Amino acid sequence: MDESLRRTMLEQGKMARQAARFLATASTTLKNDALLAMAKALENETPAILEANQLDLELGRQQGLTSALLERLALNEARVKDMAQGLREIAALTDPVGEILGMWRRPNGLEIGRVRTPLGVVGIIYESRPNVTADAAGLCIKSGNAIILRGGEEALNSNRVIARAISAAAETAGLPQGAIALIDSDDKEAAVFLMQMNDFVDVLIPRGGLGLKKAVMENATVSYIMTGMGNCHVYVDQFADLAKARPIVFNAKVQRPSVCNAAETLLVHQAVASAFLPGMLADLTEAGVEIRGCERTRSIAPGINSATEQDWDQEYLELILAVKVVDGLEEAIDHINTHGTGHSEAIVSENYSHVRRFLAAVDAAAVYANASTRFTDGGVFGFGAEMGISTQKLHARGPMGLTELTTTKFIVYGDGQIR
Amino acid sequence: MDESLRRTMLEQGKMARQAARFLATASTTLKNDALLAMAKALENETPAILEANQLDLELGRQQGLTSALLERLALNEARVKDMAQGLREIAALTDPVGEILGMWRRPNGLEIGRVRTPLGVVGIIYESRPNVTADAAGLCIKSGNAIILRGGEEALNSNRVIARAISAAAETAGLPQGAIALIDSDDKEAAVFLMQMNDFVDVLIPRGGLGLKKAVMENATVSYIMTGMGNCHVYVDQFADLAKARPIVFNAKVQRPSVCNAAETLLVHQAVASAFLPGMLADLTEAGVEIRGCERTRSIAPGINSATEQDWDQEYLELILAVKVVDGLEEAIDHINTHGTGHSEAIVSENYSHVRRFLAAVDAAAVYANASTRFTDGGVFGFGAEMGISTQKLHARGPMGLTELTTTKFIVYGDGQIR
Repeated sequence: MDESLRRTMLEQGKMARQAARFLATASTTLKNDALLAMAKALENETPAILEANQLDLELGRQQGLTSALLERLALNEARVKDMAQGLREIAALTDPVGEILGMWRRPNGLEIGRVRTPLGVVGIIYESRPNVTADAAGLCIKSGNAIILRGGEEALNSNRVIARAISAAAETAGLPQGAIALIDSDDKEAAVFLMQMNDFVDVLIPRGGLGLKKAVMENATVSYIMTGMGNCHVYVDQFADLAKARPIVFNAKVQRPSVCNAAETLLVHQAVASAFLPGMLADLTEAGVEIRGCERTRSIAPGINSATEQDWDQEYLELILAVKVVDGLEEAIDHINTHGTGHSEAIVSENYSHVRRFLAAVDAAAVYANASTRFTDGGVFGFGAEMGISTQKLHARGPMGLTELTTTKFIVYGDGQIR
Repeated sequence: MDESLRRTMLEQGKMARQAARFLATASTTLKNDALLAMAKALENETPAILEANQLDLELGRQQGLTSALLERLALNEARVKDMAQGLREIAALTDPVGEILGMWRRPNGLEIGRVRTPLGVVGIIYESRPNVTADAAGLCIKSGNAIILRGGEEALNSNRVIARAISAAAETAGLPQGAIALIDSDDKEAAVFLMQMNDFVDVLIPRGGLGLKKAVMENATVSYIMTGMGNCHVYVDQFADLAKARPIVFNAKVQRPSVCNAAETLLVHQAVASAFLPGMLADLTEAGVEIRGCERTRSIAPGINSATEQDWDQEYLELILAVKVVDGLEEAIDHINTHGTGHSEAIVSENYSHVRRFLAAVDAAAVYANASTRFTDGGVFGFGAEMGISTQKLHARGPMGLTELTTTKFIVYGDGQIR
């Protein structure tokens, strides 16, 4: 990596650390003022943002980005307005910092309390969608954290203008310089360097595809929260109401196949397989879904592709569905716990005990009875804005809101106690 | 590493994963029965445990272990009884698994709840004290986790007999084989291998010295919770009641210098330095403490050693104290936030606003007003048994009890909802 970039990043780290110390005890009013100023700045800078975004789109087209990627990258006036509105909504959320999670008195007279505090400096590595620049910065500022942003190279021009606008506005509102920093480089090594800036970054949040996740697992020495790995399943039990099952499976696969809470594998109890699968698979095929079935599936619905062992472990993120007929509830649970990524898992069943067993035994961030996996989302769950969906078990699991960007500390009041 | 050991460890990992799935939904009664059976087994096996411990002590003496280490390693009948008693106390604690942390209804009719669940498989790497084998296993079983234990080589014989006794008792009580596993080898590479068993270990908890911690930071790919790095400070403010300050500083340094919540640096406001330091340092020197002072300290108390920059960053864990005179509260806070490890930090002051500022601005797991840092401890805080003291910000911070060995999941009840 270029030496001057390295120095710049270390400087950004130091300033973010200083800014975090200030932010840790900043008042809610000051943080909200900054968020509202940031929203206003985005609106004022709309022409410059759109111009930079045009440049990114042109470069993207030259480099042959898919139309889906270009679509995610593209901004327009309405989308910039949405970003500003998002910041205003974050300003309206309750400040998590300083919340007292309990206070108790010990026999020796010590009074011990647990208080919510910011994490410190949050590093975020993300791809394509430039609105993440504003959303993530807003959530971090509200929760008292400084943020170092590393966006995708395809959105560098857009991110630069957005970051400059919101960070200048935050400073004018009274936040310290360096509270919102963007790594202004498309050097891939800069991302790796960020993953190892242990002195200056408290937590890393990667948001992106499998490549990014692998890079983080291999290189990060900073603690991280893994997000959005979703090999999700719908299990149609022998006691399923098949009239409910059909729209649930269809919705979980088809409504938005590119997102992490979309279903990738359908498991069907053998007792209902021949009643359920032909109609279900016809619906899916008609919607353009490629079916990859196990042997039993193929004997019920001939002419479909054969699933291999790898299919059970794959997060397609497109219109492909693996289908397996299972002997019973326990085989379904086992399959999910073996092949799932612990994101979102659903059972369709009218049997009380089967539902209870599935919800208790399946090891995932969100487990559903008789509903689509597509609901795993901070907004849908009622948390307001979301920083990603954690698929790990430590610290945060499932949709991450403001609370998940905090830690706690113990505050102990004494009168000269010694041990 | 030896290929057969590698295979054994992978086998232990697989069995622990299976056992964890069973434990995740095991009843509180079954887990408590197992804990009580484990306690009984330790008592029954006391002669064999003490015999194995004698062997460890002999080998330790031959290898020239310090008397402090030998003391930590040594078991006797009373200590084995304490281990058994510890397991009975864990059985008496409330089961954290299944606790419902809230449930709410969304406009679309979905009912969403958050439920506490086990982490899965916990790996623990520890040193010297063989009682950790029973304590850690007990805490993990109660919180529904399987455990893989990797003790210090110096305690291998003791740990082997203890682990065999409790794991056999747990099985007899109805827990699956492999719920409690010990890595029966002194191969250092086995510890590194455990740190990378991502398929079978959900969380790693290292408990030991700086060497272990470095090895974990460098090698672990499994998520870990760092424990017990304690460069702790006591700050004596200009508004301190010096009669309170003297016993607090003395206690924080001298009462048990080898533990992570002992103080390593004393910060004194310049306005009270000449009134406070001569008597304080005389007390400490008399107790055998080596003082390493800054220039201003040495001008007040001549004849003491000079502190270097490195001293501010050091966790002595012995009778050495670094002493620095500071210009004011903010310099003290800055010094602590720059050099501290985020463990336990204390202010001695009668000034309301200074106390409030210190508690809010110092970034540590536990912050104290007018009490010794020595109180940071699961038992003292009222949590019952403790799995270590986390000095990281993610997931757990401060003393870790049963709750910190759990995660949560979202449970969603629907009636056919789709998005």
